[in-house]
Amino acid sequence: MQKLVLIRHGESVWNHENRFTGWTDVDLSANGYTQAHKAGQILKQHGYNFDIGFTSVLKRAIKTLHYVLEELDHLWIPVEKSWRLNERFYGALQGLNKDETIAKYGAEQVQKWRRDPNEHPPAITKDDDRYPGKDLRYQHLTERELPLTENLSETMDRVLPFWQEHIMPAMRLNQKVIISAHGNSLRALVKYIDKLTDEEVTNLEIPTGTPLVYELDDQFNRIKHYYLE
Amino acid sequence: MQKLVLIRHGESVWNHENRFTGWTDVDLSANGYTQAHKAGQILKQHGYNFDIGFTSVLKRAIKTLHYVLEELDHLWIPVEKSWRLNERFYGALQGLNKDETIAKYGAEQVQKWRRDPNEHPPAITKDDDRYPGKDLRYQHLTERELPLTENLSETMDRVLPFWQEHIMPAMRLNQKVIISAHGNSLRALVKYIDKLTDEEVTNLEIPTGTPLVYELDDQFNRIKHYYLE
Repeated sequence: MQKLVLIRHGESVWNHENRFTGWTDVDLSANGYTQAHKAGQILKQHGYNFDIGFTSVLKRAIKTLHYVLEELDHLWIPVEKSWRLNERFYGALQGLNKDETIAKYGAEQVQKWRRDPNEHPPAITKDDDRYPGKDLRYQHLTERELPLTENLSETMDRVLPFWQEHIMPAMRLNQKVIISAHGNSLRALVKYIDKLTDEEVTNLEIPTGTPLVYELDDQFNRIKHYYLE
Repeated sequence: MQKLVLIRHGESVWNHENRFTGWTDVDLSANGYTQAHKAGQILKQHGYNFDIGFTSVLKRAIKTLHYVLEELDHLWIPVEKSWRLNERFYGALQGLNKDETIAKYGAEQVQKWRRDPNEHPPAITKDDDRYPGKDLRYQHLTERELPLTENLSETMDRVLPFWQEHIMPAMRLNQKVIISAHGNSLRALVKYIDKLTDEEVTNLEIPTGTPLVYELDDQFNRIKHYYLE
């Protein structure tokens, strides 16, 4: 049996302002800093430590992992960062207030964009300032990999190669793994590990800053999962 | 021409308390936090950014790099940590107050231990709590690699393979590199790059938290070097 710990970053400034974030690189809120440190303290109380950490290239997840490892006195472990663990790319919704978007498009449509794994938010165009092709950190991606919008299935399509080629090999070496990522990149991962249907994942919400433990068998099937609080 | 940036970690709690630190994993002092953030701000003012960072497995250097990258808004770059960039292992002097050590052994002897590149501080034994073989983070090292004491030449012997096998290959790919490390691991590196004699390195002191820029030619020979302040 192996334990894998997932953690969604602490509250961000835009979580707090109720705006769609996606790949926008917003910082943790004051509450988010507190949540990240507290998550580390909780893991420490439960005797957790890690051999390797994985995170996205977005600062709210990178910082969350840093503060967790600081609390565990394990800042020295290797940390691998990948765009593949980024939040779902929210297209033209990125930056918009969620209530204003509901007022404009209706609650039903917005709920679909947020939760239906096959629904695309409106796409941006390549001349949009939010196009990731304009950001230095994504310059090694192919044009095909650079999103204009993403549904959860597409997020899953780019998360899974990282799971298979980086995270699973570490676990095969019996390394204790922590993944600090985002609401939707973690939903994608959980959908895969737990073999959830589209309907089941629709209602799945992972809270910020709360360690989620997966106990997995040798074939990486879930034995059980639970939050540490 | 390539620029390489070296930075010695901000002031640590034991720098502040005037104690020999070595591989003891002490935290930054309040002043050290401020120095690290300020170093990041100075690098930003001068327009620096980086493709990759290297640091030791000691938190004072890891945190310094983190705060520098936070100020540069470049937390997303890969960071590689290695014991080979650790501070010189100070043997049985680790933890001792420098003034008390001078009172006990005399100023001349202590100065030799601190600055003579061929002088060993008194060694620890393997049953000492300070023996790195007892620390999880060094469990992959061979017994031969685990120090009982080190002079600067020995520090240089374990820093250089990392320079040649990790840092130089990154620079050969034209990656912009920052190294966050320690007084003596940086002295060892500078001795090598600048081809300093033992006498010349004796008087070399690298200040904490101050970016040191090396401009190097294609063969990694120094063109010039200067501090950013």
